[in-house]
Amino acid sequence: MRAAVMYQAGDVRVETVPDPTIVAPTDAIVRAVRACICGSDLHPFHSKPADSPAKAMGHEQIAVVEEVGSEVTGVAPGDFVVVPFAYADNTCPTCVDGFHTACPHGGYYGSDGVGGLQAEYARIPQASGTLVKVPGIDAASADDALLKSLLTLSDVYLTGYHAAFMGDVAPGKTVAVVGDGAVGLSAVLAAKRMGAERIILMGRHRDRTDLGVEWGATDVIAERGEEGVAKVLDLTDGLGAHVVLEAVGLMPAYTQSYSIARTGGVISRVGVPQYADAGVGWSSLFARNLTLTGGVAPVRAYLDDAIQDVLDGVIDPGKVFDTTIGLEDTPAGYAAMDERRSLKVMIEF
Amino acid sequence: MRAAVMYQAGDVRVETVPDPTIVAPTDAIVRAVRACICGSDLHPFHSKPADSPAKAMGHEQIAVVEEVGSEVTGVAPGDFVVVPFAYADNTCPTCVDGFHTACPHGGYYGSDGVGGLQAEYARIPQASGTLVKVPGIDAASADDALLKSLLTLSDVYLTGYHAAFMGDVAPGKTVAVVGDGAVGLSAVLAAKRMGAERIILMGRHRDRTDLGVEWGATDVIAERGEEGVAKVLDLTDGLGAHVVLEAVGLMPAYTQSYSIARTGGVISRVGVPQYADAGVGWSSLFARNLTLTGGVAPVRAYLDDAIQDVLDGVIDPGKVFDTTIGLEDTPAGYAAMDERRSLKVMIEF
Repeated sequence: MRAAVMYQAGDVRVETVPDPTIVAPTDAIVRAVRACICGSDLHPFHSKPADSPAKAMGHEQIAVVEEVGSEVTGVAPGDFVVVPFAYADNTCPTCVDGFHTACPHGGYYGSDGVGGLQAEYARIPQASGTLVKVPGIDAASADDALLKSLLTLSDVYLTGYHAAFMGDVAPGKTVAVVGDGAVGLSAVLAAKRMGAERIILMGRHRDRTDLGVEWGATDVIAERGEEGVAKVLDLTDGLGAHVVLEAVGLMPAYTQSYSIARTGGVISRVGVPQYADAGVGWSSLFARNLTLTGGVAPVRAYLDDAIQDVLDGVIDPGKVFDTTIGLEDTPAGYAAMDERRSLKVMIEF
Repeated sequence: MRAAVMYQAGDVRVETVPDPTIVAPTDAIVRAVRACICGSDLHPFHSKPADSPAKAMGHEQIAVVEEVGSEVTGVAPGDFVVVPFAYADNTCPTCVDGFHTACPHGGYYGSDGVGGLQAEYARIPQASGTLVKVPGIDAASADDALLKSLLTLSDVYLTGYHAAFMGDVAPGKTVAVVGDGAVGLSAVLAAKRMGAERIILMGRHRDRTDLGVEWGATDVIAERGEEGVAKVLDLTDGLGAHVVLEAVGLMPAYTQSYSIARTGGVISRVGVPQYADAGVGWSSLFARNLTLTGGVAPVRAYLDDAIQDVLDGVIDPGKVFDTTIGLEDTPAGYAAMDERRSLKVMIEF
């Protein structure tokens, strides 16, 4: 089969690799219908050392089940499924708590002998716990807009949703979203769904923030740093936002987040932090009782409800995809996202 | 009047200083009934530079109102009051939110022209918002145990309570308390009050942990570092505690806290952090969706209810005081706490 492989920063190739096969009785093999490129794929695209092992790429997919291991229940060949970006057993205490991305029997694609999802076929470990069937939909004849929205449930929309969920967004609250990438815009959509009274979107790409406004942003702030902080404080009687959804993962976004949070407020991070340590002392968090929450989104926890919301037309998160390519064009897709020519790239099979 | 002043690390003196007077119409003057020494007073006792300005010490007191400014309402001369460790207007949006320690019209004792509370008399700014009357009690004839418990409401008990409150301690949860100082023990008492199912107290001073057990700790772990982490995981099926209450403020306690927290759990800090940056990245908080919360306790927010609980005999937090001294012996009191000969020292006037 064909699959995307990254060799080093800036060097993604589509290559012929062995077809995946059932390894454990809990595995399934799926055939890709749609996959996509994630903002987090750009981190290794910027920094992967030349002497590090080549890495199978991609962790977002909707697919059709081809084959299942002997212990797989709940999904069967022919089922149209959403593949969450991490696999998990969905039965251990950690999964029952709703934190599937830390499942002790789970893991991530493109590591530990599991391939990536920017590929024609994939082996899905813990298939019973991981894959969720899309009821009543035939992948071959489904509407493109529907497929796009379903694909976002593999990661991007539910990562934005997780930020809002962990931040306890609720009616009456003012929410600030830091970052106008696809996750930030998804966070706007989720915050609106949860009833936020005011949603301040911080981003400077007009075509992106326009989608944020369509999805519920009440204010857009293009300024960054101190200027951006001053604008948020201006809009909030000097108090700041009850909830800050941080969808970037870089240190300036972290600093900005605690600077615009209201005393006693919450910073909910879903941008994978590109730093190990950060300010948590008296002047950053402690004196104002700021709460820092969030983490890797356990999209499996939210997936059943979210599929229904998409099928019911309640949400339309697929609008984050502004570019569609074939698998062979994946390297160009990385470049388009890296150069901000594309918000998010879908791969059609 | 006589008051405690710190000149440098290890050098606390009781000196004659000018009596405080009403400066603003919102001020009150109070006469101390009891004051005490805080674990946080030991930080400057260890580190205050010799060339820094002398500092008026103390921020915990129960007192009788002597005089009030022309705009003070709610309290009057003769009233027996609890003095929270920070003053606040109790009316601004920040106070209404319940975060009085960040009130823009508030502040701390021993700075900004306001004296300390290890002193015979004190000026209390924002007296209407700050002081809370103890109803039906005459300070002069009150029982010593009652006075001790009321005094803890100025800071220590309600700081422990704040940790449990921000950590969302609730029935069914396993709580770990890091630190067996007076705040940590208070956190045990508060967690028990909130219905925690299991309370693991981490501390190695037997006389202290015994009080923790009396107050509801179900397990005591004396080990620190990796050994202590392993013990907590052993007790919790390898999962860790739903809520960790961190009552120390030093980096090893922070590291220990995230190591013993259950995935998706909460670390609630009330020990004033003696560090600015700490681990918040993938391996510390993010991969396991740990929430970091807490901060400077807004004891005023909890004070009315807590006074009633003490008067009703529901809680007995005054047991943290194991030493009583007169004001002149305050320097010896600091030494006793610093050398761990005393858990917490009360000053009787």
